[in-house]
Amino acid sequence: MRGIYLLVAVVALTGVVVYMAHASAHAGEEAAPIFGIKIFPGYRDWRLISVAHEEGNLNDLRAILGNDAAIKAYREGKLPFPDGTIIARIAWSYVPSEENNKVFGRPQSFVPGSAPDWYLQFMVKDSKKYAATGGWGFAQFNKDGNPADEAMHKTCFPCHEPAKASDFVFTHYAP
Amino acid sequence: MRGIYLLVAVVALTGVVVYMAHASAHAGEEAAPIFGIKIFPGYRDWRLISVAHEEGNLNDLRAILGNDAAIKAYREGKLPFPDGTIIARIAWSYVPSEENNKVFGRPQSFVPGSAPDWYLQFMVKDSKKYAATGGWGFAQFNKDGNPADEAMHKTCFPCHEPAKASDFVFTHYAP
Repeated sequence: MRGIYLLVAVVALTGVVVYMAHASAHAGEEAAPIFGIKIFPGYRDWRLISVAHEEGNLNDLRAILGNDAAIKAYREGKLPFPDGTIIARIAWSYVPSEENNKVFGRPQSFVPGSAPDWYLQFMVKDSKKYAATGGWGFAQFNKDGNPADEAMHKTCFPCHEPAKASDFVFTHYAP
Repeated sequence: MRGIYLLVAVVALTGVVVYMAHASAHAGEEAAPIFGIKIFPGYRDWRLISVAHEEGNLNDLRAILGNDAAIKAYREGKLPFPDGTIIARIAWSYVPSEENNKVFGRPQSFVPGSAPDWYLQFMVKDSKKYAATGGWGFAQFNKDGNPADEAMHKTCFPCHEPAKASDFVFTHYAP
């Protein structure tokens, strides 16, 4: 019992336990606003849909992965994507590879660097739950697992709306 | 029997069947010179190691995938890679995405286009079989499944030698 009182006193004085619980809750366990999507365990093991380089303010290299439902739909060329489809987009900063460039003899190789604030995004198909946004839920997380704020998530669907002909998905399958 | 004679006659006159057999043998079934490596069935389902953009004469977007042994070794950070490791590198031409750029409002999005001659490469670890080339076998195939020629395959290991510190592999794992 004395140990518990001591712990309570330490917590009251320092907030250490409270802080630790806060940090833990942020390690990929907090759901994104509006759509209530958490980071999907094992998404990094999903199969590749495509890759891309975005210049401009983003200036990233990105990989787009899909769960089994996504890969199946892409390969069969079927639209709209079925409920249960999940598409993950990972982004890394676009940096030159000094070791590769030494071998090429000139600056030409660009590879993934550190993770940006828009490190990880998901699109989740649930035509009933997300009926107001084309049947898709959207989520963005930074490299620490924290979701972006509500204002950011309000921009997802308006940006994807021009891709209505491909069921609001920009990425094509790269064979 | 008459059907067979007719077929033989057609073949003798046109070479159609011979041509078809030739095309079929080229559909990923021909082994790369020197190293004797064929295209691995199912490699497109392997997990992602990293992505890259090579400028210069190549000017491609690429994805680097690994079989289970490769992914395990990368994630554990263990060198050298164990025998059985296979790394696949897929390349696509680097092209602007007009539909994405319309949404961004400026030319900033680059995506996979057609497959170049250096579409597909493999590195296969077999420390005994490929002892003369750092324990690695190398293979390059174009989009039709035809392997590159012997002269091309002679350039693989000399180019990879500078990466000896990372077991002759350029690509790092992108988390």
